[in-house]
Amino acid sequence: MTSILLADPRLSRLSLNTATTNRWTLREAVDGAARAGLPAVGLWRDRVAEAGPHRAARLVRDAGVRVSSLCRGGFLTAPGPDGRRAALDDNRAAIDEAVVLGTTELIMVVGGLPAGSRDVAGARRRVAERLAELVPYAAERRVRLVLEPLHPMYCADRAVISTLRQALDLAAPHAPGTVGVVVDTFHVWWDPDLAEQIARAGTEGRLAGYQVCDWNLPIAADALLSRGMMGDGHIDFTAIGRWITDAGYTGDVEVEIFNADIWARDGDDVIEQMVDRYLTLVLPSLRPTGAIH
Amino acid sequence: MTSILLADPRLSRLSLNTATTNRWTLREAVDGAARAGLPAVGLWRDRVAEAGPHRAARLVRDAGVRVSSLCRGGFLTAPGPDGRRAALDDNRAAIDEAVVLGTTELIMVVGGLPAGSRDVAGARRRVAERLAELVPYAAERRVRLVLEPLHPMYCADRAVISTLRQALDLAAPHAPGTVGVVVDTFHVWWDPDLAEQIARAGTEGRLAGYQVCDWNLPIAADALLSRGMMGDGHIDFTAIGRWITDAGYTGDVEVEIFNADIWARDGDDVIEQMVDRYLTLVLPSLRPTGAIH
Repeated sequence: MTSILLADPRLSRLSLNTATTNRWTLREAVDGAARAGLPAVGLWRDRVAEAGPHRAARLVRDAGVRVSSLCRGGFLTAPGPDGRRAALDDNRAAIDEAVVLGTTELIMVVGGLPAGSRDVAGARRRVAERLAELVPYAAERRVRLVLEPLHPMYCADRAVISTLRQALDLAAPHAPGTVGVVVDTFHVWWDPDLAEQIARAGTEGRLAGYQVCDWNLPIAADALLSRGMMGDGHIDFTAIGRWITDAGYTGDVEVEIFNADIWARDGDDVIEQMVDRYLTLVLPSLRPTGAIH
Repeated sequence: MTSILLADPRLSRLSLNTATTNRWTLREAVDGAARAGLPAVGLWRDRVAEAGPHRAARLVRDAGVRVSSLCRGGFLTAPGPDGRRAALDDNRAAIDEAVVLGTTELIMVVGGLPAGSRDVAGARRRVAERLAELVPYAAERRVRLVLEPLHPMYCADRAVISTLRQALDLAAPHAPGTVGVVVDTFHVWWDPDLAEQIARAGTEGRLAGYQVCDWNLPIAADALLSRGMMGDGHIDFTAIGRWITDAGYTGDVEVEIFNADIWARDGDDVIEQMVDRYLTLVLPSLRPTGAIH
């Protein structure tokens, strides 16, 4: 536990999402986070699967860090009884993994249009229906299903939840402790309705996560890899961070960057830059208004 | 005028935007449209500039077609007095060109973040301010400034208007005959709020244009060239077309496709396919509910 005790208190909310150091194994990622004095990691299920959930949980514990969230459940849009069953089975497994890993937050990327379908309204209806079916299972295990609005450029192939307003509307029928939302700057920075919906998420008690990375241009050839290091792109982290803070969010801040250039670099070097950018661009906006530092 | 008199009445609302046949000169485009029996063309200002507005107007008239809209005014977000003056001058010139060309509809692509700026709220404020400055000039000349929401993936570099709701909010202070909105399926198909906002646009009398093309994947290496031929991508033209029709829109339907593969093809061949896709995928949804055909 030495790494936590000696850690810089300014990093007490900073979490390394394993997608940022994509070439690292789970053990390398948790060790890298601990070495840098980070208290938490956000885990992707592929990394967890490599070790198996129980061994993954032990690796994390042994490194003296905690799990800020598990990515991802979701992909709820497939039609028909087989599609429904597969989605529910996979999400129940993800909920179980979250329990084993000791995190309450399961990030949900809800899925795009089924192959050959153009019925986005139908896909959105299925998300609502399957979410309702998962809620009792998640609630029993005290895991929160955290809806992630993805950038509209992923609506066809990744997630038919495209705005924070829509995520909150989908969450509305359920208890805030069981269905929340996450704000990922990359996905929502452009939204003219963002300030209002972040405030609403706070009021409704659903703000379950804050993920930061930048919007770089040009869009990468593989559009999934367009995410950039904070400060390298066009996002105003001060404005969004203030809205998040004013909404009462005091939880972890995950850095999740899919970017081929960053993946090609040394992991420790990436974390060092990430810490530096976090301290200068993100952390100042996370202090409650009027707080003295 | 023969081409119009003999034209297929089913094409009475179909307009070829010159961006679709990008390698064609203005004369080639208007002749190509006329040959195919299309009654209208949507003009980009670069094509107009090649001929000069007066000669362009004559070319269009001689071919027996009309101008459905002029693309584009806008780029209103530059800061400072010089940025303001340049934007106002350019937009007044565009309004004058629209008058010469005989179209009432000037499509406005409002511009992205100024170089080095991350202040999207500030850029949006400047759009509102400069729009207000342009309105009297446009109103005197009976030209409508038609705000175009662009896909959020262009928010940083092309247009800080990202949703139809936002466009309608920006238009609200002004008379519907002077500030309208255009629905371009590529830009707005993903929006969970689209049906409601199209209905609102109808109620408020601001629906000034309907542009169709598809959302293809993967996103093109040059993201501006991702637009696809109707039917090749993921958009449900039936649903959107019904909303447009139910909102009372009876105007032209422009096909505007930026796509390197389509640009490489023979223009007549592209128009033939475009007419075919329009008749099968778009036109049926444009008939008023209850109409007998």
